Amino acid sequence: MMLVIAGLGLYGLRDITLGVLEYIKKADKIFVELYTSIIPGFELQELEIFLGKSITVVKRSDLEGRWIQELLDVARDKLVVLLAPGDPFIATTHMSLKLEAIKKGVKVTCLPAPSVINAVSASTGLDFYKFCRPVTIVKPQRFYFPSTPYFVLMENLMKGAHTLFLLDIDVERGYAMDISEALKVLVELEKRENKGIIDENTLFVAVSQASSPNEVVRAFRLSDSFCSGSPPHVLIVPGMLNLIEAEALQVLAGATHEIISMWNNRVRRIINQNSSLHACTR
Amino acid sequence: MMLVIAGLGLYGLRDITLGVLEYIKKADKIFVELYTSIIPGFELQELEIFLGKSITVVKRSDLEGRWIQELLDVARDKLVVLLAPGDPFIATTHMSLKLEAIKKGVKVTCLPAPSVINAVSASTGLDFYKFCRPVTIVKPQRFYFPSTPYFVLMENLMKGAHTLFLLDIDVERGYAMDISEALKVLVELEKRENKGIIDENTLFVAVSQASSPNEVVRAFRLSDSFCSGSPPHVLIVPGMLNLIEAEALQVLAGATHEIISMWNNRVRRIINQNSSLHACTR
Repeated sequence: MMLVIAGLGLYGLRDITLGVLEYIKKADKIFVELYTSIIPGFELQELEIFLGKSITVVKRSDLEGRWIQELLDVARDKLVVLLAPGDPFIATTHMSLKLEAIKKGVKVTCLPAPSVINAVSASTGLDFYKFCRPVTIVKPQRFYFPSTPYFVLMENLMKGAHTLFLLDIDVERGYAMDISEALKVLVELEKRENKGIIDENTLFVAVSQASSPNEVVRAFRLSDSFCSGSPPHVLIVPGMLNLIEAEALQVLAGATHEIISMWNNRVRRIINQNSSLHACTR
Repeated sequence: MMLVIAGLGLYGLRDITLGVLEYIKKADKIFVELYTSIIPGFELQELEIFLGKSITVVKRSDLEGRWIQELLDVARDKLVVLLAPGDPFIATTHMSLKLEAIKKGVKVTCLPAPSVINAVSASTGLDFYKFCRPVTIVKPQRFYFPSTPYFVLMENLMKGAHTLFLLDIDVERGYAMDISEALKVLVELEKRENKGIIDENTLFVAVSQASSPNEVVRAFRLSDSFCSGSPPHVLIVPGMLNLIEAEALQVLAGATHEIISMWNNRVRRIINQNSSLHACTR
């Protein structure tokens, strides 16, 4: 009859929408995947009690394997709801399912939900329109140490834009990268690539459990000590800060006026260097 | 006591969250601004009846003027909720209010909501991580014809990234830019700037009323005829499309395989041109 793919948002049961509740009420079968992100304060049992319905947890190996054929067979005649943390379509996993369903003739309804991508602007005051491509910092492996985060950061800074780093997470193995680990990866990438982007004066903004009551937002330089909250975390390197953003980082993230103007000067130099490098091509 | 700034999401009452409802239940005073975006299917009266409370509409001139001092005076002793379309912090308007409140010693709680920024990935299948800086196409005035959208598009394409154009809107004057008007602006910018980005073969994806039951998603070239839905609209110029994105544009947006591979070839040429231009700087 229909497959509903719906988001649970960012904190406990708080971000569940009226639209999701309506479909859940009518649902013949409810599944939830909890591996693409962590929802702080979320308890499956609490949700089941609240809804008065039982919910089946599905794993990555289910949703990315043959099991989805079974799911689609059920959804052909029944109303099936699949719940996911945050907004389901920020992770790319669920798009394959949506396309597969449509190709099999199963109707699909997607219900959006708040995602950390929105929340960081509210938490930090950094202008959403100035964020360029987000990038995930993945846990380095012995033979796998991708430099993408470093080059995305460099490109963004050359335009004065903000960079949002999402930190690697493997919920099924109980792993969530913390801020220090992410910083270590960036420092190591600086050593390898050596473009002079990351040093003790680079300005970072760390956000833990964005939008939750336990949210922690901190602006700091690599040389500063800082404390972060509990996962999930995101890390930002801001670009050129306008007046409101500069004020926001002071009011919301504990930055000082001096640190902000030093950082703005540095970003200005990076932008100017970049334009003069490009001058020969014009 | 507290100022709660909360989002209403994208369609009717569907995206109202449990968190928003809880605060509204306890609220002493509820305001709503409806000028930063359009929520299709939303009726203020329906919301008032649903909540059993009356809601005061505030205008741009209120929220961006002296009235916010009155608001903050009330919020000092009472629970005040301000509702906004979409996610309130995607528009920059509400950050000034948040900062002003905190500086005045008023506690602020921000409740995130789904925004069109999330919905476009669900609607089009275009990978969220490949969207670079979004940019608004503003209605050109006699002496004001900003070229920002054109140059943001060019920058993004040179990296193979997607560009999201938000279309100008002036709810209080009943104006919402439609897709044809946005295309005209881009064509005019091509004439003025002449970098060979926009021509009859440029691939566009238009999304009207993203995520709503009346959503319309169409992929087309400038030379194709197309029909769009009702506002609000967004317009996308995709970058390099991977396999899932290419399939999604066929399944969800009516593109053909041929159009997609022609576009991918063109984006590849733009990326390569850009790298050879840069070669002299390396």
